Amino acid sequence: MPQVLDFWFDFASTYSYLAAMRIEDAAAAQGVAVNWRPFLLGPIFAKNGWTTSPFNLYPAKGRHMWRDMERQTGRMGLPLVRPDPFPQNSLSAARAALAVPEAARPAFCRAVFAAEFGNGRDISAPGTLIDAARSAGLDGAAIAATTQRPEIKEALKEATAEAAARGIFGAPSFTTPDEELFWGNDRLEDALAWTVAPR
Amino acid sequence: MPQVLDFWFDFASTYSYLAAMRIEDAAAAQGVAVNWRPFLLGPIFAKNGWTTSPFNLYPAKGRHMWRDMERQTGRMGLPLVRPDPFPQNSLSAARAALAVPEAARPAFCRAVFAAEFGNGRDISAPGTLIDAARSAGLDGAAIAATTQRPEIKEALKEATAEAAARGIFGAPSFTTPDEELFWGNDRLEDALAWTVAPR
Repeated sequence: MPQVLDFWFDFASTYSYLAAMRIEDAAAAQGVAVNWRPFLLGPIFAKNGWTTSPFNLYPAKGRHMWRDMERQTGRMGLPLVRPDPFPQNSLSAARAALAVPEAARPAFCRAVFAAEFGNGRDISAPGTLIDAARSAGLDGAAIAATTQRPEIKEALKEATAEAAARGIFGAPSFTTPDEELFWGNDRLEDALAWTVAPR
Repeated sequence: MPQVLDFWFDFASTYSYLAAMRIEDAAAAQGVAVNWRPFLLGPIFAKNGWTTSPFNLYPAKGRHMWRDMERQTGRMGLPLVRPDPFPQNSLSAARAALAVPEAARPAFCRAVFAAEFGNGRDISAPGTLIDAARSAGLDGAAIAATTQRPEIKEALKEATAEAAARGIFGAPSFTTPDEELFWGNDRLEDALAWTVAPR
């Protein structure tokens, strides 16, 4: 059995988009499997007293982030559209991602990120989630309907609580089988190396 | 003449330590010269309403940073001692760095960082700065005395104002001849590549 790296992301997070688009190839090259773990940054940020993204709260930090995203997506050959509003409301998308079968989750999640940051679509709109589900070979309407199921709502709350309990404070984050925490798209390679050979 | 990359750092900053210890080799490999630009994060953080490091204000972020520093310094073969208090008061060290001759500045700055993060010394103490200056081949007592000179105090204020005007919000940061801004030790390679060939 391959070692498994947990990939924690919020659909509203810019750098989660970069990680989502490259993690499967990077992990496969190391023989590592990826467990896609959607969660919500909002409740974690709220404990800091933040009511929006730190990229909005601190404008200089935000300006650098958008410019850095232009540079990074340019290098990766990915499109970049600045979502309006930013951050997007990622609640329904995160619930839907937990509702889809595990085997389809990576494709569904990449489709949501591509719709949001590649095409500027509103990821809180059911139509966006339906299209993303269909592109992943799923029944779009059925997936969109799952976002109101109590057990799915509860699963997302539990995932977010687990993220906080693991010390996660931003996204993307990665946790290894021995519970080492790595924060940020820039730490994906370190997290994979640690998964293969903990130090 | 080689292209010049401006390296903006605060002596109190953990990731500035990592960048300081590797920037000359990394830049030389690209044929780039480095302009060492000490400044103070404090006045920039104060505009965010922060009275200390965000690594203290946000404990989960701080816990990850110290663990990440252990991993990064381990890989680089650098010692790591957690300064007490953290962050250190970097005012005198930054003034002294502006007072030393330009040719000796890199060696002086590395000696200050090594004393602080390698040996746990108090960088606000004149003795630490005297020792750092001597290790860089300078008159230690003379350098320590410069920290009270009005023109040196003013030069540091101007450097900090210039950093803010350039959009700098954290350290280390790098600015290229065409004023592209890169934040963080992880962006050093990108900043050097941009200096050689702006896109």
